[in-house]
Amino acid sequence: RQILVLGGDGIGPEVTAAAERVLRILAGRHKLALAFEHALVGGACYDATGLFITDATMAKAKAADAILFGAEGGPKWDSLELTGPPETRSGLTRLRRELELYANLRPIRPFEALLAHSTLKPEIVRGVDFMIVRELCGGIYFGEPRGIERKGDGLLHGFDTQDYSEPEIERIAHASFALARSRRRKLCSVDKANVMESGILWRRTLTRIGERDYPEVELSHLYVDNAAMQIVRNPRQFDVIVTDNLFGDILSDGAAMITGSLGMLPSASLGTPRPDGRRPGLYEPVHGSAPDIAGQGLANPLGAIMSAALLLTHGLGRPDLAQIVERAVARTLEAGIATPDLGGKAGTGEVLAAVIEAL
Amino acid sequence: RQILVLGGDGIGPEVTAAAERVLRILAGRHKLALAFEHALVGGACYDATGLFITDATMAKAKAADAILFGAEGGPKWDSLELTGPPETRSGLTRLRRELELYANLRPIRPFEALLAHSTLKPEIVRGVDFMIVRELCGGIYFGEPRGIERKGDGLLHGFDTQDYSEPEIERIAHASFALARSRRRKLCSVDKANVMESGILWRRTLTRIGERDYPEVELSHLYVDNAAMQIVRNPRQFDVIVTDNLFGDILSDGAAMITGSLGMLPSASLGTPRPDGRRPGLYEPVHGSAPDIAGQGLANPLGAIMSAALLLTHGLGRPDLAQIVERAVARTLEAGIATPDLGGKAGTGEVLAAVIEAL
Ligand SMILES: CC(C)[C@H](C(=O)O)[C@@H](O)C(=O)O
Ligand SMILES: CC(C)[C@H](C(=O)O)[C@@H](O)C(=O)O
Repeated sequence: RQILVLGGDGIGPEVTAAAERVLRILAGRHKLALAFEHALVGGACYDATGLFITDATMAKAKAADAILFGAEGGPKWDSLELTGPPETRSGLTRLRRELELYANLRPIRPFEALLAHSTLKPEIVRGVDFMIVRELCGGIYFGEPRGIERKGDGLLHGFDTQDYSEPEIERIAHASFALARSRRRKLCSVDKANVMESGILWRRTLTRIGERDYPEVELSHLYVDNAAMQIVRNPRQFDVIVTDNLFGDILSDGAAMITGSLGMLPSASLGTPRPDGRRPGLYEPVHGSAPDIAGQGLANPLGAIMSAALLLTHGLGRPDLAQIVERAVARTLEAGIATPDLGGKAGTGEVLAAVIEAL
Repeated sequence: RQILVLGGDGIGPEVTAAAERVLRILAGRHKLALAFEHALVGGACYDATGLFITDATMAKAKAADAILFGAEGGPKWDSLELTGPPETRSGLTRLRRELELYANLRPIRPFEALLAHSTLKPEIVRGVDFMIVRELCGGIYFGEPRGIERKGDGLLHGFDTQDYSEPEIERIAHASFALARSRRRKLCSVDKANVMESGILWRRTLTRIGERDYPEVELSHLYVDNAAMQIVRNPRQFDVIVTDNLFGDILSDGAAMITGSLGMLPSASLGTPRPDGRRPGLYEPVHGSAPDIAGQGLANPLGAIMSAALLLTHGLGRPDLAQIVERAVARTLEAGIATPDLGGKAGTGEVLAAVIEAL
């Protein structure tokens, strides 16, 4: 199987290198034939080619069985103040869009060893185990028209379009209901239907599909403002949350602090299974490129390593190997081996070594 | 001075009645001539008239010196599944829009007596004191076009427009910079400029106005996803946060849990001062209509009473009287007199009596 590694910017390449090591070791031990390829993405690619991702890399991404992604961006490229559709300003966004990776899974499940690390009280955090499913190919990220223009009133306007078609909502609904059915059978759909028309269509579509195809899943609805509060108030109430691209972006970062550190959180972005059964997928830690600590060997590799675990489950059909990785990470944390973002003193290399040791 | 009381739905009328009592007592003691008028709004108004607010009430609102607002809505009216612009589906939204109450101030400052009540750790919450300034008249709430329609591709689409003109951003920028200047001189502007064009114009405009008119205020920028996380990670870092209508709605509910209960949080929605110096304003608790506890005398009146304090400051120019109210609320909480949402056993009436006693 072919894995494309796109390290990207800042600490991105450091953490994907750690995750790749873990995958290589497991592949060796469990007779998994994995081939790794590497390419530039993000600011690193922009500096080299003037594009945040090249067509050649896009072609490789389409051919690969899975993509392991690091992080993209940094102040250097932010300050270019580029305008235009996001897929021209971000390699990641182009990948999500052109590979139709519409279902972004972000599990929120704190490690026991890190409970004390959350800014929330341990009794609020203990036992939390939910999944945010974020729609990743539509909404205000891609809607047209958009721009900065002088309009009929003679004033300069900045405008964007939030747009969802019914099939776009249907496919993310199916992905979420199916996931909830395989878990605790509770799906909470988040929208702003009291203000947005797209939210009304979203809510109607979720309700219709739930009643028709997933009667065994309990569907509830929250407005996004209330959801932002409930996630901090009582996160244990959730099993699966499904929401649109923008709300998913905001809520999942808000939920991140439950687990004590953004550095721990993995994600999987999945498309529709191909006829041969393979499912296009990109696996990346939720954290960013952290340019302030890049190149110093201080980055927490666990978000990327946990993303490799998701890759094993969803990309290679090996949940058994994913579990081995997750247990090794848990044991590393229990041994108190952690990077500074978790209050520890270990570097990226030591944490990686401990995970490998525990595999 | 004329105060229009719009109790609205659910617990709304119960909490505005408490706040009105406090205002009447202070007015009596401090020779403030206040006249109160009452009208229907929200579902209560819809059931009586078919509209969520009538033109007659709108006229009274425009003439009043200040509006004291309770809460609007409930499942009964949600389930009507009305579509159309939000100002036709919500009296509150029409008030905000037609009175041009563009600056929504939401202070986040926990009471010492409630520190233990937050789901966040006391050491994270202690000393938090920031203000969210939410733009309230623009953005995706009002942008056109919007609708649910079959488009050129033959598919049903739900769509909304996020739109900000330069002057709309300028006026909220001035309100926020001026506020930050009177506080700790730190303004954090929140947008999604890496994805949204309106975010780019927002960021540029804030930067330009800051450099030109408020060099003494330190301006920073955060993407909204990061802001959602930072508010939970380290809320003490903030002084004033300014953001758009939708992001402000989400972030301020997320921030609510810092203070232990949504029932405590007040808000002021302000317009541009009129030539005679009076500033149009609507004052309301952040909590909703809580139909599940309506009519039982269990509602926490403190959010409404704290909103009356904001009314005294911004609507009547009496910050000295506002302080008296705030101290009375603090003393009530220190005495352990609290409604069930704060873990107490007192009813609305007992809490009100304790506040009046402490005035
Ligand atoms: C970098 C940015 C465009 C991206 C997003 O908003 O989708 C990021 O925040 C994420 O969540 O992966
Ligand atoms: C009721 C709703 C339209 C409103 C909003 O989103 O503005 C509410 O959430 C608020 O924050 O006052």
